[in-house]
Amino acid sequence: MCHDFEMFSLIRKKRRIYLDTAAATPLRKEVRAAMLPYLETEFGNPSAIHAEGIAARSAVESSRQKVATTLGIRPEGVLFTSGGTESNNLAILGRLKYLARKEGIAYSDMEVITTRIEHPSIMSLVPVIEATGVTVRFVEVDGEGKITVAALEKVLSPKTVLVTFAYANSEVGVVQNVSRLVRTVRQFEKTHTHGRRIVIHIDAAQAPLWLPCSLTPLGVDMMSLDVGKCNGPKGVGMLVLRGNVPLLPILYGGGQEQGLRPGTENVANIVGAATALTLAQADYQERAVSVSKLRDSFIDLLTEALPEVLLNGPQGEERLANNINISLPKLDTEYAVVYLDAQGIAASTKSACAGAGGGESTVVSTMTGNSERAKSTIRLSLSTDTTLADAKYVVEILLRFKAKMNELTR
Amino acid sequence: MCHDFEMFSLIRKKRRIYLDTAAATPLRKEVRAAMLPYLETEFGNPSAIHAEGIAARSAVESSRQKVATTLGIRPEGVLFTSGGTESNNLAILGRLKYLARKEGIAYSDMEVITTRIEHPSIMSLVPVIEATGVTVRFVEVDGEGKITVAALEKVLSPKTVLVTFAYANSEVGVVQNVSRLVRTVRQFEKTHTHGRRIVIHIDAAQAPLWLPCSLTPLGVDMMSLDVGKCNGPKGVGMLVLRGNVPLLPILYGGGQEQGLRPGTENVANIVGAATALTLAQADYQERAVSVSKLRDSFIDLLTEALPEVLLNGPQGEERLANNINISLPKLDTEYAVVYLDAQGIAASTKSACAGAGGGESTVVSTMTGNSERAKSTIRLSLSTDTTLADAKYVVEILLRFKAKMNELTR
Repeated sequence: MCHDFEMFSLIRKKRRIYLDTAAATPLRKEVRAAMLPYLETEFGNPSAIHAEGIAARSAVESSRQKVATTLGIRPEGVLFTSGGTESNNLAILGRLKYLARKEGIAYSDMEVITTRIEHPSIMSLVPVIEATGVTVRFVEVDGEGKITVAALEKVLSPKTVLVTFAYANSEVGVVQNVSRLVRTVRQFEKTHTHGRRIVIHIDAAQAPLWLPCSLTPLGVDMMSLDVGKCNGPKGVGMLVLRGNVPLLPILYGGGQEQGLRPGTENVANIVGAATALTLAQADYQERAVSVSKLRDSFIDLLTEALPEVLLNGPQGEERLANNINISLPKLDTEYAVVYLDAQGIAASTKSACAGAGGGESTVVSTMTGNSERAKSTIRLSLSTDTTLADAKYVVEILLRFKAKMNELTR
Repeated sequence: MCHDFEMFSLIRKKRRIYLDTAAATPLRKEVRAAMLPYLETEFGNPSAIHAEGIAARSAVESSRQKVATTLGIRPEGVLFTSGGTESNNLAILGRLKYLARKEGIAYSDMEVITTRIEHPSIMSLVPVIEATGVTVRFVEVDGEGKITVAALEKVLSPKTVLVTFAYANSEVGVVQNVSRLVRTVRQFEKTHTHGRRIVIHIDAAQAPLWLPCSLTPLGVDMMSLDVGKCNGPKGVGMLVLRGNVPLLPILYGGGQEQGLRPGTENVANIVGAATALTLAQADYQERAVSVSKLRDSFIDLLTEALPEVLLNGPQGEERLANNINISLPKLDTEYAVVYLDAQGIAASTKSACAGAGGGESTVVSTMTGNSERAKSTIRLSLSTDTTLADAKYVVEILLRFKAKMNELTR
């Protein structure tokens, strides 16, 4: 039996089981093909007025149009950035700065609503905006990470100028009911803000492969995207705007991207971003259906084999199709990830940007109030390449890891 | 004769004459080859602790080491950014913020020295830092764009905390005598600042192909680089630091790049950046010698054929090897650039980031005080591919353009 297992392990190790798609995804071959001309012959600066420049400009603008069509917005609403982090920074800081400088609202008269389970690129902004005098109000999430209407209503105030939260949480995969939360804000707006708009921003970095991203049905004003998480290149993101949401830039230089994002456009990556986003959205539904089925079988296998497993985040449709996040209380899950890796499985404990190694997960700690649970998380983020055999193998390796740990501590 | 010329033109049009390397350069094939694995199989997130993540981390760190070796600094001194513009922003804003927040120096007690001929990514920062209370002092440049020791001495003050200027100007190609200017600052420091360091930053975006970039001989504390101008990819830059120059971040998120530049690292572009910079610096001397010879012959041809030509910027070694910038007073040079383009020649009027089309060149206007001259600039930036035959052809086309204009206005 043990011998068979070793054989199995040896065979399996030839193919890596990559279960960290929430941190990084391979570049899709169609995306690479779209990018390559801009890494080969088409190298012009989009601001130049000669043929090489015009070709580059045309690539950037047709990419912008492609993104706009995919998301159901005007091309002027698409701003290309260097990634999801910069998009989040521009959305929050750029909007607050606009309100202060152009609409003359004192920072101390502004409130921003967010949660305590956001990505580091939002959480790190909290002290920055608090330092300007803005009040940050945290909406409570429930035990599964969801923002309820009641919780949101509690923190909305006549001073609220901006609400920001992740469409789908990168660690525990909870998908917020965006359109319902938006309706709550719009309702509040009607009666409490004297007609002043409360801008709603979502971080959709984890969404394009699994969830609809058209802005109008969601109802949001701003959305951050990072195609490195949907089979596009790293180092390119988008901040997309529905309707008129004036911002001020947070970096200064040339007038690129409507004066909101200076610097020579990264043409190859912009072309790659538009291609990746469009391909991700083209068939997100089928992809989500098939991968979420596998996810549920995977979760079943885990809970059957390891009765102590605690699933972090919701089940079913409220969970991102590719996300599994479990706690294995009392197990050293950082070591578990290293052990899985040696057995050919790439997993993580939490978000890569939060430090993929040890330490407590702020997200799980906030949701559950359980420090032991927050210290023992493992995130397995699947892809369309993941199979049931992979799931079984992962469960076997985890059992083996647990047995080994028990042996050591006996 | 005219017929012959048409034939010549037709033949030549098959090969474009690209004279806008100051705005964008083609990706060198060795750079592309170095990048491709990270656009194919090696897609991990450098913050992940599994094999895919470790491979990505190793690529980033060996790129950092390569840059450090090329520039003669420690790897900790290399920060990867999204481009030259972001590098300049981080250098200036990040340093001033550090001094204010961590050393408790009031913004109103700080002075920054720069010139009026800087790139838009520096010029746009002027009102931003002035708004904090910092005083910006402009050092005068001479008629060729040079900063003299005497001019620098005039603006240095006990409040000076930062001096920033371009190593080589992107429009007129003037190369500053960096080490002499640094010595002037160090001398001033000894007697006037009570031991407080005046940090010297240079924007070296135009330098790597043509000038030595090792930091110690230059003596500067910070240098911005953008490999899109030295046969590397677009969308990646570096801010490199010699010794201990503490900064605060200007974007907020994960702890990447020593907490100074958050967001998942753009692994492919970082690998491309290190390769491009290293190759550029490996043989910059031979390259500069051969291209500057051609540049001088090209300038001679231009001044012989068009006696009204005014060369903007200095001649000889004080000029970037690949830069020609002329004024053709009374000619519509924006139209000239379009005409050249139709004849197979890519040129520009000024810096792409300053708007490559019409309008006055701030750089030439500042240097010469002559608005007519500043409105009629053409920049021709050469490469190792440029030939004397190209130069002759460009001169012929410019003559033809002038004749056509004369005809129209007769």
